[in-house]
Amino acid sequence: MNIDDIYKPVQGDLEKVERSLEEIVDSGFPLLAQLLAYTLKNGGKRIRPALTLLAGKFYAYDPALIVPMATAIELLHTATLVHDDIVDNSPVRRGRPTVSCNWGENRALLLGDYLFAKAGSLAASTGSLRVVKLFSQTLMTISGGELKQTGVNFALASARDYYFAWVSAKTACLFATSTESGAILSQAPEDVIETMRDFGHNLGMGFQIVDDVLDFVGEEDELGKPVGSDLREGTMTLPSILFHKSYPEDDLLKRVVENKDAESVALAVEKIRNSSVIDECLALASEFCSKASRTIGKLPGNSARQSLLDLAAYIVERQR
Amino acid sequence: MNIDDIYKPVQGDLEKVERSLEEIVDSGFPLLAQLLAYTLKNGGKRIRPALTLLAGKFYAYDPALIVPMATAIELLHTATLVHDDIVDNSPVRRGRPTVSCNWGENRALLLGDYLFAKAGSLAASTGSLRVVKLFSQTLMTISGGELKQTGVNFALASARDYYFAWVSAKTACLFATSTESGAILSQAPEDVIETMRDFGHNLGMGFQIVDDVLDFVGEEDELGKPVGSDLREGTMTLPSILFHKSYPEDDLLKRVVENKDAESVALAVEKIRNSSVIDECLALASEFCSKASRTIGKLPGNSARQSLLDLAAYIVERQR
Repeated sequence: MNIDDIYKPVQGDLEKVERSLEEIVDSGFPLLAQLLAYTLKNGGKRIRPALTLLAGKFYAYDPALIVPMATAIELLHTATLVHDDIVDNSPVRRGRPTVSCNWGENRALLLGDYLFAKAGSLAASTGSLRVVKLFSQTLMTISGGELKQTGVNFALASARDYYFAWVSAKTACLFATSTESGAILSQAPEDVIETMRDFGHNLGMGFQIVDDVLDFVGEEDELGKPVGSDLREGTMTLPSILFHKSYPEDDLLKRVVENKDAESVALAVEKIRNSSVIDECLALASEFCSKASRTIGKLPGNSARQSLLDLAAYIVERQR
Repeated sequence: MNIDDIYKPVQGDLEKVERSLEEIVDSGFPLLAQLLAYTLKNGGKRIRPALTLLAGKFYAYDPALIVPMATAIELLHTATLVHDDIVDNSPVRRGRPTVSCNWGENRALLLGDYLFAKAGSLAASTGSLRVVKLFSQTLMTISGGELKQTGVNFALASARDYYFAWVSAKTACLFATSTESGAILSQAPEDVIETMRDFGHNLGMGFQIVDDVLDFVGEEDELGKPVGSDLREGTMTLPSILFHKSYPEDDLLKRVVENKDAESVALAVEKIRNSSVIDECLALASEFCSKASRTIGKLPGNSARQSLLDLAAYIVERQR
């Protein structure tokens, strides 16, 4: 399945989102414009704004409201990536040095702040206080979740429930806001808004698990970063957690997370990618995406619903 | 003049702001609550929320709207301080180690993000999209201004106009938003909203100039940080700029800003604090505050107006 085919029902408005992003780049003074161009014109998959547009297609779809919101969602996502790369000390994203690596942490920090503000301003331009509140709450959840994650010990980091709570805050929350805001702005009834939120949440959970699997089994040029980046940064994700559960006597992972030495990391990645936990993780991701698909089973059978279903399937099958 | 006397017309609601801040502290999980308590219960002067409350006292004053807004303003201010201390690598603020110094830069960064989001959420709770937009625009101005300031060369940093533009973005903009939002939420007519914005802007300009003077002539225990902190961080402020203009042949300042060696910093601070530029700066600050006072000359002569006038006088006279 091709992502462009899936996006077809909202292709025109997704191009409008792209043009809005370009206008934002052009509106900055030279240094700001350079940083914005680097982060916004990057060929990302734009899954989150596409979700907002698709979720808006069931009731009163108004591009004048939904395109700014979809743009705001992509800006908020970008801002969190820029700040995350500082926190995780990541050298590379999408095959290029991170902003903090290229321009320093201070500029990355201020760029992220600017992007948050611009995102908030666009969300407010929809005229809906409800989506503005949802938007603020989302950033509270994301930053609060990341803060909670700082410096947790190995025992906690290797707990499956802890991982799910963290992924819910860092990824699924923004997916849920993407779909919920589309539903709100198209004046969907409350039960459909809730359905859309559930769909986004489950899709986001599945998406992040696949992301974490790809960090072990993907190819560097597809991933745009070295394989095993999470472990190299000392972060336990679902594959490591399930591996640790299967082999509790093996203290390799504890050593890796605490010392981050290159040799142990490489060995751990090798062990995990050749173990059965990869399939276990993909089965869990698939479960979340199936659950997402089931939640929208009762919605009108239009092309947007088909795209949301295809997206749920794509997310599990994707290679990057 | 005593600041508590000046705040008298809004004392009760300023206490409500304080209680709102305490509730925000209590709402966080343990680590977040600890960081919020450290940054929000700090005995700051609360000038910005006081401005919002006072500016709301001329038309339909509604504490249910204006108290959350004043709280949002203080949160936004706190968030920018937390992020600034990362950018400036500051070890001390208000007599205590900064968050980044005590808990590390990552946690400080995420705490700032959380505070921005909470501030936005409170601004949205006023039900006024106009203040939400103003709020977002303010954060864009502040972060954009700080970004522009990163890595400017000595020639630019020593230009007076450049300093004024920077201070306008980093300080006066939030002062202007504090007063403007109070006016908007009390349903003041457009010309009064503009007057209040001008008042806040000029007050903020004066405030920052005095702050920058105190960094040279203040006492460490009053300042809550070592004297000469700006120069030690390589930052040119108005006293340095005017000194450089008076003695263009003296290359001491250029050396200080570029090398930041302790001996040159101490010598430069000594030279500047004993020079006539201190009085020049204070005269400029006084001019801004007088201009602020003149702008509100035509407003009804109530106790809130008297407090705003007293605040303008206090800002020039203050020792910390």
